[in-house]
Amino acid sequence: MTMNKNSSESRREFVKAIGAGVFTVGAGALTSNAMAASANQKKLGIALVGLGNYATNQLAPALQVTENAYLAGIVTGTPAKEKIWADKYKIDPAHIYNYDNFDNIINDAAIDVVYVVLPNSMHKEFVIRAARAGKHVITEKPMGLTAAECEEMIAACHKAGVQLSVGYRLQFEDNTQQIVHAGQSLPLGPINYVRSEFSFIIGNPKQWRLKKELAGGGPIMDIGIYCIQGARMATGLEPIALRAVEYKTDHQKFSSVEETVMWQMEFPGGLYSNSTCSYNMKANELYVSYAKGNARLEPAYSYRGVGGHLGQLKLPPHQVNQQALQMDDFVVCIRQNKTSKVSGEEGLKDMKIVDAMYKSMANGGQRVVI
Amino acid sequence: MTMNKNSSESRREFVKAIGAGVFTVGAGALTSNAMAASANQKKLGIALVGLGNYATNQLAPALQVTENAYLAGIVTGTPAKEKIWADKYKIDPAHIYNYDNFDNIINDAAIDVVYVVLPNSMHKEFVIRAARAGKHVITEKPMGLTAAECEEMIAACHKAGVQLSVGYRLQFEDNTQQIVHAGQSLPLGPINYVRSEFSFIIGNPKQWRLKKELAGGGPIMDIGIYCIQGARMATGLEPIALRAVEYKTDHQKFSSVEETVMWQMEFPGGLYSNSTCSYNMKANELYVSYAKGNARLEPAYSYRGVGGHLGQLKLPPHQVNQQALQMDDFVVCIRQNKTSKVSGEEGLKDMKIVDAMYKSMANGGQRVVI
Repeated sequence: MTMNKNSSESRREFVKAIGAGVFTVGAGALTSNAMAASANQKKLGIALVGLGNYATNQLAPALQVTENAYLAGIVTGTPAKEKIWADKYKIDPAHIYNYDNFDNIINDAAIDVVYVVLPNSMHKEFVIRAARAGKHVITEKPMGLTAAECEEMIAACHKAGVQLSVGYRLQFEDNTQQIVHAGQSLPLGPINYVRSEFSFIIGNPKQWRLKKELAGGGPIMDIGIYCIQGARMATGLEPIALRAVEYKTDHQKFSSVEETVMWQMEFPGGLYSNSTCSYNMKANELYVSYAKGNARLEPAYSYRGVGGHLGQLKLPPHQVNQQALQMDDFVVCIRQNKTSKVSGEEGLKDMKIVDAMYKSMANGGQRVVI
Repeated sequence: MTMNKNSSESRREFVKAIGAGVFTVGAGALTSNAMAASANQKKLGIALVGLGNYATNQLAPALQVTENAYLAGIVTGTPAKEKIWADKYKIDPAHIYNYDNFDNIINDAAIDVVYVVLPNSMHKEFVIRAARAGKHVITEKPMGLTAAECEEMIAACHKAGVQLSVGYRLQFEDNTQQIVHAGQSLPLGPINYVRSEFSFIIGNPKQWRLKKELAGGGPIMDIGIYCIQGARMATGLEPIALRAVEYKTDHQKFSSVEETVMWQMEFPGGLYSNSTCSYNMKANELYVSYAKGNARLEPAYSYRGVGGHLGQLKLPPHQVNQQALQMDDFVVCIRQNKTSKVSGEEGLKDMKIVDAMYKSMANGGQRVVI
């Protein structure tokens, strides 16, 4: 890789070099837009808050290929991780924080964006603290534990004059966007059904995802959000009501959170979706039935390799770095002072649905208006 | 086609000649068993009762390629059809009946089996009348309108000493049987989820399928049965409870029957299925998640072309004549005096589930023990 190539070429080669694969036309266009805006502009510094699996294996590597952002700092409650990360990513100790001294980040000019990757129950607190420190914020999904929490987070960011975004990486994935566009331009006619399912068999029974006080819930709060996003993205519509029922077989492993939830959402105009999310099954799919054909993404929600078909059009598996595209886009939004398509308001919409799901589940699957 | 070839070869060539496609190894084996039993035996005569679309376009053509049975008679309420069918299939007027004189079939030695292809609400009456006439009986699904009806039908056939079968053609379809076998021998490990869906957008709003007095219900009674069969076949288990909810958008077209139903079934050992059937959507799939992989048939329930995959094994679309295999097998069962795998008792199991679905739907989706 020679440095006198333009940034587009050098980035593309670098991505290939690390095995992340090739960009498609669509993703390339997205990237080019971001890069056009970023020409000769300083990369923004991102601090990752919470150095668990997703930060370690997805976000930090993604920040090595981002065009508009770089890994500028870390916030961790585990001192042992400080040196490991500092060495690996050449992070100056001045930009390393723990949860106690995190608020000092207000004085750290190197940090423009704080990315909250903590257990769900800590999202609200750290988003608000980051906003108060004057930093733009990305939070992982679920945005909060409830819609009310999301509203607090949005208000805090609004008051602080910072942008807020949710880590909805699939909104930057081209095959997913093909489904989105088909739901808007309707080349296969109106949609008559959507099925969105995401389930996996969870491992370690002691992990935070199985503890309600940390996760706020079970698969709904984790992979269920993808199913909601999938149905909303495919239809371009907001559900008006739903029914949700929990099914539990392992009362020990899932003593504090749900194991499996199946739910149906009603959309305007008589369109329905059916979804399943579970920590004790396996499925990863978005299926859309149009008047003149159908579409399926499978896998639909994975970090890489989302692919399937749209009518007669094959959608070969994509290997784009979704997280890099997502973070690059957020920087463009910040620079242009425009609202991200994965804004806090977008996250709030999903959490209103999640609230309704828990309400329906608590009432034996009764229909709940959202 | 030369007549000095053995019957296996000549049949195979005939099937090819009419464009029904080739038999696979498995279907061939099934056929060979049937034929081994039938060597030098007279074909049994089948009378079709009700000459609607399925009898006209599926069963009568199938009876041209059956090895063990032939189209010996017809029963119709439409006089104009008598001559058309007599001419086309060389049926002697002595073997043509209407619904009034149907019981005279007791004296017709050419008719061994009566195949009831009438609207659902007439199945019970004609199965019982056929049994009383001493004829073995096949009825289309749903076997009856309720489990109670099925029990009456079974009792009548038992009393008359005749065999009773339901037209579950997919139990003679090889790719479907691969899924059945995988659920029994578990080469991909235990099953953790099944999804079965069958929906289409119904046309003519005046057809009998949309009239409760004739159909007994909507898509549940028609395509929903396939989803139930699919989940039962894939797991080899009987559901112990379910929840079902109806969704209706077109109250005029679906004024007397349900439009869309989504339901979840609980199986022993903590296995769940999720299903959708609808007359106003499109889907045709059986998905099974095993511990070590998944299977999908799509289409799963069509007359021809059922195909998909089972783990890494591709299941290319099958073009076998399912109806011919089904009827040939029933003749073998009659000859060997053994119970068909698609017996009345098999149909009763499905109708107990259907009863529970309507009960759950009537109670807002409450859990109903089957």
